[in-house]
Amino acid sequence: MAVSIAHLGPAGTYTEVAALNLAHMLQEQGETEIQRIACSTIDQTLYCVDRGDADWAIVPVENSIGGSVPITLDTLWQLENLTIHHALVLPIAHGLLSHSPDLSQIRSVASHPQALAQCRIWLDTHLPQAERIPMNSTTEILTQLPDDQELAAIASPRAAQLHQIPVKAHPINDNLENCTRFWAINRQPLTQGSRTSLVFSTYANVPGALVKILQAFAERRINMSRIESRPTQKSLGDYLFFIDIEDNANSANVRAALESITDIAENLRVLGSYDLIPLQANSHADP
Amino acid sequence: MAVSIAHLGPAGTYTEVAALNLAHMLQEQGETEIQRIACSTIDQTLYCVDRGDADWAIVPVENSIGGSVPITLDTLWQLENLTIHHALVLPIAHGLLSHSPDLSQIRSVASHPQALAQCRIWLDTHLPQAERIPMNSTTEILTQLPDDQELAAIASPRAAQLHQIPVKAHPINDNLENCTRFWAINRQPLTQGSRTSLVFSTYANVPGALVKILQAFAERRINMSRIESRPTQKSLGDYLFFIDIEDNANSANVRAALESITDIAENLRVLGSYDLIPLQANSHADP
Repeated sequence: MAVSIAHLGPAGTYTEVAALNLAHMLQEQGETEIQRIACSTIDQTLYCVDRGDADWAIVPVENSIGGSVPITLDTLWQLENLTIHHALVLPIAHGLLSHSPDLSQIRSVASHPQALAQCRIWLDTHLPQAERIPMNSTTEILTQLPDDQELAAIASPRAAQLHQIPVKAHPINDNLENCTRFWAINRQPLTQGSRTSLVFSTYANVPGALVKILQAFAERRINMSRIESRPTQKSLGDYLFFIDIEDNANSANVRAALESITDIAENLRVLGSYDLIPLQANSHADP
Repeated sequence: MAVSIAHLGPAGTYTEVAALNLAHMLQEQGETEIQRIACSTIDQTLYCVDRGDADWAIVPVENSIGGSVPITLDTLWQLENLTIHHALVLPIAHGLLSHSPDLSQIRSVASHPQALAQCRIWLDTHLPQAERIPMNSTTEILTQLPDDQELAAIASPRAAQLHQIPVKAHPINDNLENCTRFWAINRQPLTQGSRTSLVFSTYANVPGALVKILQAFAERRINMSRIESRPTQKSLGDYLFFIDIEDNANSANVRAALESITDIAENLRVLGSYDLIPLQANSHADP
């Protein structure tokens, strides 16, 4: 039986590079046949695994410059069968891809909004005249580049190679410490791992509920490495909180903390326990 | 002397509707001549006031469905001369605008990514075949609609009227309780108001620093109505925290709380104190 991994496509996205790394990990665990499924949006990637059409989903969660990826949090929260099993951290180095002979002839630059944001200073300096066009992925525009020399894209060198487009500049991200964290998600139950992601809302009638919940972890010396709020989509001011803590969900400490907040945390759910796996920028990037 | 208000354009954006409401408020305070300046992006709106090219900026902060607007937080944090003076809450009701005679002929729908997200279920149900195209604003695409009957936009009924485009369906947002909160910002010092927005990061070497900071407000019975994290853009896992509290920055309680956290909160800054002003969906929407 082949194992399948759903990821944001088309070919050449950073998410695909993360998926290739997951494929390599699964091969090392003895899987011989691994199939990749390119999805058109991040939410479709998760729905694909929820429906059972793929075994794994790889989705971006957070970039060190652009911040969190809201669609990942909003979709995962709704799909209760899904659990996070790994977090992969990929260094990001963007290139400017174009068939234009000269930077000065480029009239527009298209890419995912986070990639455009991550190269803002470089674009302001080198292409102040160019319009910036947001796309669903870093690679969606690439098929149009051969027909339009005034168009450029921001994408990975791997995407340039796959689509045979010249790289005019690299790296062009303003901050060279740029990393994206991806979650590897499937339908299996909770496993081992030194970090845990949780989601909850707070009962509106409990004043200071969020502080009390965070305190429940702090007083047990469980470090919180991240907090993110998202609207519950009911009314302005109602939030879901996504927190990451540095311990396994089944440890005695975490179980005691979770037990102590059942009265104040609504819709509490453990999204998964996992380890952080640092990747190399170009590791396993050849399909 | 005319008073000028910078806002996201082109004409017909929801931000412009909020700007028209601010103009009305200023007129009631005795300003006779008010000029509006349409900017192409949200960060340009804030830079415009920071440079002194406009007196006020109106920027979206948060939508009840889409969540926070990262570019507003990331830009405001960097511009230390700017202070928030009002928060305006505008109900949002999106329309589907198109010259297409029939929904079935629509091949693509273009709008701001938050507007597309807010109508996702409606689009999945009524236009499952249509590609979704993200734009910089809800109104940027409107000038292209007369030339392409297969193209639709999601925008306000006011934008439809300004551009003389038929509204094929309204409201199409999935949640009818959809509201956006805007901040009205200028270069004047801190003023009155029952809410305060703060930003800070935490010293990396203080474990549990965030919880201690929130505790400083909670133990003085200062309610926190919102917390948002944004990357410091240094490395993955370093955050700025934006919090809203329900008290004036100059109250004895808030001053004591701020005093008590100077050792654990880095880059602490009060962004402003202000009142929440609820607007009507169509108030003062005629320029």
